[in-house]
Amino acid sequence: MKLASYKDGSRDGQLVVVSRDLATAHYATGIATRLQQVLDDWNFLSPQLEDLATTLNHGRARHAFPFDPRQCMAPLPRAYQWLDGSAYLNHVELVRKARGAELPDSLRTDPLMYQGGSDDFLGPCDDIVVASEKMGIDFEAEVAVVTSDVPMGSTPEQALDGIRLLMLANDVSLRHLIPAELAKGFGFLQGKPSTAFSPVAVTPDEVGAAWQGGRLHLPLQSTWNGKRVGLCDAGPEMSFHFGQLIAHACKTRRMRAGSIVGSGTVSNQDAKRGYSCIAEKRALEMIASGGEPSTDFMKYGDTIRIEMKGTDGHSVFGAIDQTVVAPGGER
Amino acid sequence: MKLASYKDGSRDGQLVVVSRDLATAHYATGIATRLQQVLDDWNFLSPQLEDLATTLNHGRARHAFPFDPRQCMAPLPRAYQWLDGSAYLNHVELVRKARGAELPDSLRTDPLMYQGGSDDFLGPCDDIVVASEKMGIDFEAEVAVVTSDVPMGSTPEQALDGIRLLMLANDVSLRHLIPAELAKGFGFLQGKPSTAFSPVAVTPDEVGAAWQGGRLHLPLQSTWNGKRVGLCDAGPEMSFHFGQLIAHACKTRRMRAGSIVGSGTVSNQDAKRGYSCIAEKRALEMIASGGEPSTDFMKYGDTIRIEMKGTDGHSVFGAIDQTVVAPGGER
Repeated sequence: MKLASYKDGSRDGQLVVVSRDLATAHYATGIATRLQQVLDDWNFLSPQLEDLATTLNHGRARHAFPFDPRQCMAPLPRAYQWLDGSAYLNHVELVRKARGAELPDSLRTDPLMYQGGSDDFLGPCDDIVVASEKMGIDFEAEVAVVTSDVPMGSTPEQALDGIRLLMLANDVSLRHLIPAELAKGFGFLQGKPSTAFSPVAVTPDEVGAAWQGGRLHLPLQSTWNGKRVGLCDAGPEMSFHFGQLIAHACKTRRMRAGSIVGSGTVSNQDAKRGYSCIAEKRALEMIASGGEPSTDFMKYGDTIRIEMKGTDGHSVFGAIDQTVVAPGGER
Repeated sequence: MKLASYKDGSRDGQLVVVSRDLATAHYATGIATRLQQVLDDWNFLSPQLEDLATTLNHGRARHAFPFDPRQCMAPLPRAYQWLDGSAYLNHVELVRKARGAELPDSLRTDPLMYQGGSDDFLGPCDDIVVASEKMGIDFEAEVAVVTSDVPMGSTPEQALDGIRLLMLANDVSLRHLIPAELAKGFGFLQGKPSTAFSPVAVTPDEVGAAWQGGRLHLPLQSTWNGKRVGLCDAGPEMSFHFGQLIAHACKTRRMRAGSIVGSGTVSNQDAKRGYSCIAEKRALEMIASGGEPSTDFMKYGDTIRIEMKGTDGHSVFGAIDQTVVAPGGER
């Protein structure tokens, strides 16, 4: 099933079930009002939502209405945890090579992962408000999962059982603030403003065989200012699958329901597949020229669209479609 | 007023108002069931809770019952954000000096702060479950604040207005896991398991003039295995006050209601005041001997009690009082 949180003026929005083709939606009234509620009590509430989804998909839901992604908050407008991995080593290699840094061997066995801010996510069509264009505004197109409770010390295989929903994410990054933060060792704070998520979150069965071994084997499209710049396969080159990422986080603590875990920027070795963040494009330019990159970061008014189509050619999650604006709303 | 979340089998507990002397409590039934609800709608709900607190403090609340800190979850059993600063530079200096590292000048102008896991906090008397004693189990006694919504770009003075509640925290640390994590630059994950908080959270007026300039001017007691090892003044040596810490986090994003911001380990230059974490004691030993520290980290069965008394000699927040145990519960 596909779930979304509609804007209603509240902090958590109103839970809606969305049809498989993203054409219609139905309020989950009488079952649950917020998505976190469902994750807190998944075994009891999700079968009821599945029933509603089936009715909706058969065109028999009485109070269905046209689904509008612009009315969506993030599926979880705020969450108790947002952990973002960096599971595509090609991305890590490119970015480090461009700045002449070595790739430590541990990166192949010990996933990079940071704890992100989760108190204030952006909806799929919300503006990206940045105080200054000089901060090096970048998008990062990613896959993310939402978990149930996962015990401390879970193996990667056990952790896979804890995955309830899949989403897309735009992990907005302010590149020029990041080096100084990383040098402090304490992780990202100012360099990572609010993350945006796709209109809907879907149960893994919605993508069929494309969800395999903890990886989502589908191409992720990134379209910057109307030009498609990336069509990267999210599957085979994910060096750590989601079960491994979750198990890494659960080594010394358990993970509670409604935690979100991201894949990191989807990246392929074949440069013809394009890029899922500008930093990678710039890294390629720097490696090729041995000097400065020619591509600049995002400016006010720039748009970024992130979408993934299933094997049937239809959008799985709906599109993240955002515009970068100044604090006053200036584009 | 003083607020706590009583264990009731749910993920968020049941909101109770606690008397100033921590002797009695009263369910906030009819006003709010969860503390996050109150923070989401502070201006409407907090006056009603204040009325109940006044009635309770006058001994006139009809359904008051004896307050038992062992029935408490963390005031916010889970939160949308947990940011922990490192605002006592004496702590940072000692720890770095012990390992022969320089203190960069930026640490005096740019606060250290990490984004912590907030999906699963410990109650004040909950066991600290650690997989292995070899991980270097340490406590960190801290002051923490809970905020309302704080806009992006707020000044430190504006940020101070966003503080709603004060608490104590035990930011449990696994010291032997931390160096490798810091080297990766992405911050803490395995090195920082669940944080514990004091039985009650209090509005700043509860401490009177001790809350001044964004600092809490009271001594923080740390008692390890029944021996008082620290009586550090949390006020004057806090190099960045809470408004500065919040403003730092709000440079590129807003902060939403219910965010928790910690001070970092409370630390005083005068070594006679003792220590609020074992790492600091060990640092002093290493600096003095030029060799290995003589104090070891915590073992299974060890206890840590963290408490703060007001100018009237009474406990302000109740005590954090925890035991370190193995995953099976072995002490």
